Amino acid sequence: MSWLDIAPDSPFSLANLPFGIISTSGNSTPRAAVAVGTYAFDLSTFSPASAPAKVKQHWEAFSQPTLNTFASLGRPFHREVREYLQTVLKDASNKDAVSKCLIPLAEVTNHLPLKIGDYTDFYASTNHAYNIGVLFRGPDNALQPNYKHLPVAYHGRASSVVVSGTPIRRPWGQILLDPKAEPKVPTFTPCKRLDLELEMGMFICTPNNLGEPVDVQSAEEHIFGYVLMNDWSARDIQAWEYVPLGPFTSKNLGTSISPWVVLADAAIPRTEGLPNENQLASYLQEGKKANMLDISLEVDLITANGKKKTITKTSSKNLLWSWPQMIAHHTITGCNLQPGDLFGSGTISGTETGTEGSLLEQTKGGKMVVNVEDEERKFLLDGDSIVIRGWAGKDGERIGFGEVGGQILAPLDLGKK
Amino acid sequence: MSWLDIAPDSPFSLANLPFGIISTSGNSTPRAAVAVGTYAFDLSTFSPASAPAKVKQHWEAFSQPTLNTFASLGRPFHREVREYLQTVLKDASNKDAVSKCLIPLAEVTNHLPLKIGDYTDFYASTNHAYNIGVLFRGPDNALQPNYKHLPVAYHGRASSVVVSGTPIRRPWGQILLDPKAEPKVPTFTPCKRLDLELEMGMFICTPNNLGEPVDVQSAEEHIFGYVLMNDWSARDIQAWEYVPLGPFTSKNLGTSISPWVVLADAAIPRTEGLPNENQLASYLQEGKKANMLDISLEVDLITANGKKKTITKTSSKNLLWSWPQMIAHHTITGCNLQPGDLFGSGTISGTETGTEGSLLEQTKGGKMVVNVEDEERKFLLDGDSIVIRGWAGKDGERIGFGEVGGQILAPLDLGKK
Ligand SMILES: [Ca+2]
Ligand SMILES: [Ca+2]
Ligand SMILES: [Mg+2]
Ligand SMILES: [Mg+2]
Ligand code: NI
Repeated sequence: MSWLDIAPDSPFSLANLPFGIISTSGNSTPRAAVAVGTYAFDLSTFSPASAPAKVKQHWEAFSQPTLNTFASLGRPFHREVREYLQTVLKDASNKDAVSKCLIPLAEVTNHLPLKIGDYTDFYASTNHAYNIGVLFRGPDNALQPNYKHLPVAYHGRASSVVVSGTPIRRPWGQILLDPKAEPKVPTFTPCKRLDLELEMGMFICTPNNLGEPVDVQSAEEHIFGYVLMNDWSARDIQAWEYVPLGPFTSKNLGTSISPWVVLADAAIPRTEGLPNENQLASYLQEGKKANMLDISLEVDLITANGKKKTITKTSSKNLLWSWPQMIAHHTITGCNLQPGDLFGSGTISGTETGTEGSLLEQTKGGKMVVNVEDEERKFLLDGDSIVIRGWAGKDGERIGFGEVGGQILAPLDLGKK
Repeated sequence: MSWLDIAPDSPFSLANLPFGIISTSGNSTPRAAVAVGTYAFDLSTFSPASAPAKVKQHWEAFSQPTLNTFASLGRPFHREVREYLQTVLKDASNKDAVSKCLIPLAEVTNHLPLKIGDYTDFYASTNHAYNIGVLFRGPDNALQPNYKHLPVAYHGRASSVVVSGTPIRRPWGQILLDPKAEPKVPTFTPCKRLDLELEMGMFICTPNNLGEPVDVQSAEEHIFGYVLMNDWSARDIQAWEYVPLGPFTSKNLGTSISPWVVLADAAIPRTEGLPNENQLASYLQEGKKANMLDISLEVDLITANGKKKTITKTSSKNLLWSWPQMIAHHTITGCNLQPGDLFGSGTISGTETGTEGSLLEQTKGGKMVVNVEDEERKFLLDGDSIVIRGWAGKDGERIGFGEVGGQILAPLDLGKK
């Protein structure tokens, strides 16, 4: 408990203390803050007089426009800062000093929390991979032979990762109007099958050198924290472009993340993930069963007319591979990770109706509809918004992610066809 | 001609003036230079007293540790700087002032010329795509239906791009020892089929905003310049991992580039590229025939014992898609490009024996050998070095790229299997 009077169901309890980058109308310089209750606690203006020496020494990291420097200081430092902040925020004698640095969240502009060097998107939810595989390649080849031997992934586009609230423009691209017609001749058109992908994102803090893989047992120490992610996807463009080198422009239109990074040191509950009957290669053997974060996830679809439906309820535990396993695999051939690198989990889907992390799955490739009050959707229409929420933990010590939202803008008029 | 006495066959003529980032034993601070004859001309220590006002105003960009700021100042500025430097270097009255800033290339340490935000690797050489397609999928599906409709590409790993001379460690990874055996069970082992890929690299200067595609007709103005590239590739790891989302760890072990960026404003000769019978989508219609750079390219393989062979002679014109077409396609769904982003052309291969840009192609997937004096190679062995050279233009006005080289280190001992 705290003099701060944080509501029991607040996503931003003292057990959470997620970090972000904010600016305000009065101070347009982006700087670091933690979310607590209904406030952003502006770290750049708080004086850490009573902090441990090392924390004081590096406090200027919170005046920087990204969290990269803070992240690069490593997990032990993050723990020290978290402990210090919890002490400060619990102790009523700090009320005056702290209050001066509290800004109502409603008055805050959020920025990308880290400068992202590279972004990698995994494909770690067996249920999603199976559902998509059925639609793209049929049930016989739905899961490729490699799927349960290694965490399948591809490099995403770091520059197009944006913070929650950024509008997403419906893209133009090449699609096959009739995928079965021969010869295959594409049409240049605005995307007709624009979709969301419900994912978790993970940021790297501690780097490794090129040529030096990260051991799966110590990979956890390379994790800065987690965010919610929506990997907007142009399904019709993806289907035409993705062979043989993978998705490209269909995933470049924007990837949205939530603004508050829940640090790896916040005690998110863990549980077992999806089953894997394979004997794994040594570098992927993590040796603990409860290696999945258990975060409740929900997706709302809100139409231009304000009609609203929670279309998905699922959990982040629906993954075959843990974050440490993804790190070990990403670096096994020597790839160097850097502070601020972003991993996506891949779309997270359960096995039942209403637990799928994409419209492509919910509508069986556009063959069915999702009802949003009196409207129907197969894919996203202009003006639609998607909001993803996520939280873990009990009342009073909630570890909430807040939300990541974005609205679809009408396509440009590219005129000539 | 110039008082500098540049050899007629020097890659670094006054018509070239490529930019790079250097340091020296006497001054370890990375800063900008141009290569001219056998020297690096240190721009950070040269006083641009007689330069046009705008050039003088931005000269401090050359004291930065990357060329990103210079690149971001745009093509008109690059032209102004090039003209000024040519004037300075031709005029004997500058001999004393210039000489103080000339450092023999042999005494210079080269660094990555730009900080790379994102790196994208294309697949633009039809000959290479066909050869690889035959090996991976057989002749019937060698070229996928989309290949001649859009520039196929995938996102690469920006962090693992390294400058010429950086050693490359043979990676461990999962491979199928017998690709035909069922069930498919991978083995964790050092890569047995390590290969080079001869490519050209292109750096972006002028950015575009998310959601705003770059028109193919103005895309040329977004090009900063070009380098040679070797996209080291673990073929056995690639074959197992690449379905369905594309190459990942097989391309993360390191990608080497030459240190001197030949600016787009250097007049590299142009010619026609590979034929395309398709009616292209409007956003890819460039409307000029001679849209390919014509750069002579050679690859040397040097063994640990010092045996040497030029295994490849080809030209950069062996591409189906031009750089402006790649830019237009990359951005068509709205992807934002940033100064310092790197594009790779994809492996460049001609149609004849000895013109292929990879060992995979030269040895028909390891079925034949390449002779290097009295040694034989199917793929690269530990201690082997690859050196790629490239140049265009006539004697006296050569536009040379110098070279990109790298040696293969023995794999780590990852011990336990
Ligand atoms: Ca995804
Ligand atoms: Ca390549
Ligand atoms: Mg994306
Ligand atoms: Mg590479
Ligand atoms: Ni990147």
